[in-house]
Amino acid sequence: MTASGAATHRIVTAAILVIGDEILSGRTKDKNIGYIAEYCTAIGIDIREVRIVPDIEEEIVAAVRALSARYDHVFSTGGIGPTHDDITADAMARAFGVTIDHDPRAVAILTGHYGAENLNEARLRMARIPAGAALIDNPVSKAPGFTIRNVHVMAGVPVIMQAMLDAVTATIPTGAKMLSATVPASMGEGRIAAGLGAIQKDFPDVSIGSYPKMLDGGFATDIVLRSRDADRLAEGVRAVEQLIASLLTAPR
Amino acid sequence: MTASGAATHRIVTAAILVIGDEILSGRTKDKNIGYIAEYCTAIGIDIREVRIVPDIEEEIVAAVRALSARYDHVFSTGGIGPTHDDITADAMARAFGVTIDHDPRAVAILTGHYGAENLNEARLRMARIPAGAALIDNPVSKAPGFTIRNVHVMAGVPVIMQAMLDAVTATIPTGAKMLSATVPASMGEGRIAAGLGAIQKDFPDVSIGSYPKMLDGGFATDIVLRSRDADRLAEGVRAVEQLIASLLTAPR
Repeated sequence: MTASGAATHRIVTAAILVIGDEILSGRTKDKNIGYIAEYCTAIGIDIREVRIVPDIEEEIVAAVRALSARYDHVFSTGGIGPTHDDITADAMARAFGVTIDHDPRAVAILTGHYGAENLNEARLRMARIPAGAALIDNPVSKAPGFTIRNVHVMAGVPVIMQAMLDAVTATIPTGAKMLSATVPASMGEGRIAAGLGAIQKDFPDVSIGSYPKMLDGGFATDIVLRSRDADRLAEGVRAVEQLIASLLTAPR
Repeated sequence: MTASGAATHRIVTAAILVIGDEILSGRTKDKNIGYIAEYCTAIGIDIREVRIVPDIEEEIVAAVRALSARYDHVFSTGGIGPTHDDITADAMARAFGVTIDHDPRAVAILTGHYGAENLNEARLRMARIPAGAALIDNPVSKAPGFTIRNVHVMAGVPVIMQAMLDAVTATIPTGAKMLSATVPASMGEGRIAAGLGAIQKDFPDVSIGSYPKMLDGGFATDIVLRSRDADRLAEGVRAVEQLIASLLTAPR
């Protein structure tokens, strides 16, 4: 038996900040939010909020300040390339009131990759890193991300972002994992709602969510239970399973 | 020739608010943000910000107030079902300081759908609508969404959300459409960045974005130009095409 109660579990929180006009216009469909959310849940980091903002410095600065003050970590994606619309690094420096310049470590990485003769001004722009930041390795295209305070600044291209997320999460402490279990119910939410609300009252330490879906032309419901305590989670699952069984045998 | 200059174009702005623990945990991958963003861009509504918040009333209230004060419209998705974790309607009422109760119009719709004998307390919960709100038709599963002030409250299930978005956007004035054109370049951003920055300076009324991607194991770039003025957009496209042609013929 493990000790029960949320107070015994350390919780690590985070937010995701997606930066880019192309996501807001719908031209590019974001693939990073779902990936980061699932990844963080699996390693014991709770994503509590997501924001998507345009390529406007004031908007990025405001969002970074709000999110970094409120959560243990912020994972940002996008805007760290070599073109004029890549303004994330400058915005991060401004958000934290530090200077920004070509970082010798980043210049060395880019020189090694492109060769000094091909390291033009635009590519050198990718070596602009806020003062005091730690670099995040980019095994795909070399130009590094960086961590400033509790903000992890990553690329927007999914394959690069994923490699950077591996690198950065290896260096930060994570919390107790949120465990979850899904109980499928072959009925709409309306039949199960009353009983489910009663179970939620009996299990204040287990978060119970109800997710309707279309199935074979009718409605079905996934009941998702989440807790950091495996025993309580199992007890909650049994209660929900008993509720569903009783509804299936009861007259409608 | 059409008149040039952004001042002649009416701009309508909006934000998207996604409500739901299941998106933040990564269990459900959001399909609504990209859909709404692309849809709104096509009809002349600029999405300026997106937030995803958990099923916590204080969080929903704070986000609704921030977004509705700042943009012409807010499109919310999720949390209007019959179960205990569906708290969006109550949060909207609290955000705007109005009462909430069973709405006779909504009760009539649900009674017609389920029959009075099957309209249990949970299903009746879906008729809770903030005072003064207009209903949004739900042709799929009947339980309506609603518009309160400038916030359009829709279901989270994509097929239902899409039907509600059709209904609600038919009733609101839209602005001048943002036009866009994409110029593909078979080279990485680093080669094109300097010339692109110069073109952006020549075309302050055309937003020029550069989006790198992996292609056949190498890097390619999509240059996306956006403007509400078709003539200026076409001029910008020609400038970018000439830049790419000159780079392709120049020694690297």
